[in-house]
Amino acid sequence: METKSGSSNSVTIIHNAMIVTMDPESRVFKNGGIVIEQDKIKAIGQSADILSQFSSLAHHLQIIDLHGHILLPGFINTHVHTSQQLARGIADDVDLMTWLHHRIWPYESNMTEDDSYLSTLLCGIELIHSGVTCFAEAGGQYVSGMARAVEKLGLRACLTESIMDTGEGLPTSWAMRTTDDCIQVEDYTGFLVDIVEFITMLFFDLLMCAYITALMSEQPGLLRQSQMELYEKHHNTADGRIRVWFGIRQIMNSTDRLLLETRNTAQELKTGIHMHVAEIPYENQFVKGNRKVEHGTVTHLEKINFLQNNLLSAHTVWVDDTEIGFLSRAGVKVSHCPAAAMRMLGFAPIREMLGSGICVSLGTDGAPSNNRMSIVDEMYLASLINKGREVYAKGTTDPTALPAETILRMGTINGAKTVLWDNEIGSLEIGKKADITVVHPNSWSMVPVHDCISSLVYSMRTENVVSVMCNGKWIMKDKKIVNVDEGEVLLAAKEASSKILKRAGISIPNRMKVL
Amino acid sequence: METKSGSSNSVTIIHNAMIVTMDPESRVFKNGGIVIEQDKIKAIGQSADILSQFSSLAHHLQIIDLHGHILLPGFINTHVHTSQQLARGIADDVDLMTWLHHRIWPYESNMTEDDSYLSTLLCGIELIHSGVTCFAEAGGQYVSGMARAVEKLGLRACLTESIMDTGEGLPTSWAMRTTDDCIQVEDYTGFLVDIVEFITMLFFDLLMCAYITALMSEQPGLLRQSQMELYEKHHNTADGRIRVWFGIRQIMNSTDRLLLETRNTAQELKTGIHMHVAEIPYENQFVKGNRKVEHGTVTHLEKINFLQNNLLSAHTVWVDDTEIGFLSRAGVKVSHCPAAAMRMLGFAPIREMLGSGICVSLGTDGAPSNNRMSIVDEMYLASLINKGREVYAKGTTDPTALPAETILRMGTINGAKTVLWDNEIGSLEIGKKADITVVHPNSWSMVPVHDCISSLVYSMRTENVVSVMCNGKWIMKDKKIVNVDEGEVLLAAKEASSKILKRAGISIPNRMKVL
Repeated sequence: METKSGSSNSVTIIHNAMIVTMDPESRVFKNGGIVIEQDKIKAIGQSADILSQFSSLAHHLQIIDLHGHILLPGFINTHVHTSQQLARGIADDVDLMTWLHHRIWPYESNMTEDDSYLSTLLCGIELIHSGVTCFAEAGGQYVSGMARAVEKLGLRACLTESIMDTGEGLPTSWAMRTTDDCIQVEDYTGFLVDIVEFITMLFFDLLMCAYITALMSEQPGLLRQSQMELYEKHHNTADGRIRVWFGIRQIMNSTDRLLLETRNTAQELKTGIHMHVAEIPYENQFVKGNRKVEHGTVTHLEKINFLQNNLLSAHTVWVDDTEIGFLSRAGVKVSHCPAAAMRMLGFAPIREMLGSGICVSLGTDGAPSNNRMSIVDEMYLASLINKGREVYAKGTTDPTALPAETILRMGTINGAKTVLWDNEIGSLEIGKKADITVVHPNSWSMVPVHDCISSLVYSMRTENVVSVMCNGKWIMKDKKIVNVDEGEVLLAAKEASSKILKRAGISIPNRMKVL
Repeated sequence: METKSGSSNSVTIIHNAMIVTMDPESRVFKNGGIVIEQDKIKAIGQSADILSQFSSLAHHLQIIDLHGHILLPGFINTHVHTSQQLARGIADDVDLMTWLHHRIWPYESNMTEDDSYLSTLLCGIELIHSGVTCFAEAGGQYVSGMARAVEKLGLRACLTESIMDTGEGLPTSWAMRTTDDCIQVEDYTGFLVDIVEFITMLFFDLLMCAYITALMSEQPGLLRQSQMELYEKHHNTADGRIRVWFGIRQIMNSTDRLLLETRNTAQELKTGIHMHVAEIPYENQFVKGNRKVEHGTVTHLEKINFLQNNLLSAHTVWVDDTEIGFLSRAGVKVSHCPAAAMRMLGFAPIREMLGSGICVSLGTDGAPSNNRMSIVDEMYLASLINKGREVYAKGTTDPTALPAETILRMGTINGAKTVLWDNEIGSLEIGKKADITVVHPNSWSMVPVHDCISSLVYSMRTENVVSVMCNGKWIMKDKKIVNVDEGEVLLAAKEASSKILKRAGISIPNRMKVL
């Protein structure tokens, strides 16, 4: 990356690159330029025009020639469990009950806040390498840990706590929460901290103090903060890059009261709700039996008036045409996670949803469901899988279904709409935030590029992403993560994840004869 | 890669690596060593044993410490059109008839022998980067061009000409071949060369000579060699790395006489036959109508006694249980190409085929059908897609279907069986050829590795492959292709592919508003 002049970052001009804007006109500048002032896009257009208009103006100016590169809006991953990154590979090729009860729940419930921080750092590194500038957390235990990592990495995120107020088979530390706990302010943390302080103050017994501190870290459930408190503490922090959303794990772990109070609170605070919806056939059967509705989850959510345009409905696989109508009319956004769908859930009717006007975006889901955490791979998968799915709808595949331009929208502007942030991100337009992904297509993985848009979807690999800017600042430059030491994170992650496995008592059988 | 001593390559010891042998016992050495003498594996076992037994023996010795790396047998891509590499991205998101008649056939029929050489070089570079040491060409026009590229790159391959003796809509230069032409020796080449020599000898007219030479390069169809001639010229060349197979494009372009004579000739020569089988529902309908059989292609091939254990049946999507039985009993090998299947063909019954004992391996198909030419991605896809396909067989996905160890076999030892070469490749065993892929798992794309075998299938990216050895020689070392200049090939490929598009009169419409 060539820098001509200037030491300050206040104004940056990038020129001589192909710019795929993803704006409402779908403009692509073959030789484009873009001007970034602080965190925003100040101008965009033909390279020559940009250079002649802006290069002589400022003295605090950085001019970057990106010849041969392609600029895109940063990708948006609308469903990712950052806390599960350390659990990659612990639950491959097992049935759903083993996956949940014997691997994922024991693992997650044995994580500390520091583990969550580390897991989000590791996940964030992979997201940045795959060109992601913004993600929607699908729900974990420690929003504070996630927030620390997001702030440090320089990413943008909608963070969500995993919320459940009912359900069988949950780990002990999770099962104790009432509906009130899930919404309102808890005081466990403050209470325990007070005790520790009191004991320390009296110099009573240092051993006892250490014991209680250890208890706090070993029983993390006691320390969880309520969603309101999390909202107040973290929403709109990190230069506005962090937003706090409300979480609903899934309908089988939620009372109707939790659903409705969540809806009301999120509406009041003008924030979003992230929920897993209609993941498996059993979920619909459960809802039919327990909530006495005709079809399943979406039908019930419509009936209780839960469906709103601030709902991010993840997966949404087992829905019928009537339910697609409910989602469309309410303006609900859907996160399609192709890898997880193929591996665990089934074929979501994505073509039909897009056809009915639903905003569908892309998510990776968590590492133990995928295991690649790359929107670049999900774009490739989304195209292939939805072409193949037509076999069952029409008798043969439809190679024209979900063309590359649709997929690219799902990964960018639809992602922005899904996270309720499209007034500021999702396309490269004047006045929007400078969230930019730089792709280098001149490699064995992409050459020849006969059709730029389809090459970005079908040929590009994660490794073609070379630099990423978020909020006007480079967070990866020439494949080097800017704000953390990648090697250190990898090392710490390996150690921490082994320790969690040990604490959780999870052992993974050998698949071959290991000597 | 650390080298301790020695300048000659005659004996190499690699130690301190995890070695996944894929041998009949599925042995994995956690800290393994391997001794390579010339082109063969001389010993394999625990690092300590290997070092103590061999390091003091030879004086022409190279010792390589691969701490933290994983060694695998080289992957085998059992269905790839190397000639289509230059056509990547020319036919994305179009229906099958447009794909074939307006993009692929015009493109391929406008290629020269030099284009084929370049296309195979470019494809080979991508194959090597994805850890492939051996491939089965699916059928192109210029085996001589492919052979030159394979020899230069240091790869191993079964090369096949694309053979058709009937069919509508074929380009003019392809439509002229009779059944005899397809099998026996043609003399067009010799005839034209004789004319040129005669003219030159007489100093008659240099202009006329140049004209005829140009004619030869512009009408490549005239120069195609018969399969017998190709076999005699190229089989068992390049230190035994090249074998020549017989090709059948597909049943709709083949008379029964061509099928049966191909079967007989391949049997006599103890070589294989590569054929596209049961790709689309229309193919079965066509065969039912024209060949008067009950189901489709496989039923007809069984009826005429064409199915033999030297047949590589590519795709094989639209087959029923009876036909799976025919394939299994005959010992036919199947190449499963997950990306192409999803995009164009449909869900092949892979679980059922494996269950009936059929040897199923993996292929990428050609660049315009995929567009990623990586067996690493195909392994990931094969697992996901075949888990998802169970929705239609059983009502829900089956996350336990095609587990990682099965997929890894498909990419290695099953690949070797498919190309009839498992006595020498497909696993790391004493006496076999040293075809080895080296993976570096210590990166953001794979950490943490809790389950090595599943990590290789689900988390590994093409870019985790760092070094590749074929026939005892490094063909990629620390991500650098050894035998060709990658940059030069990329440059030449871009130029050549644009020229072919122009000659073929193919223009690709813009998907967005390009300015």
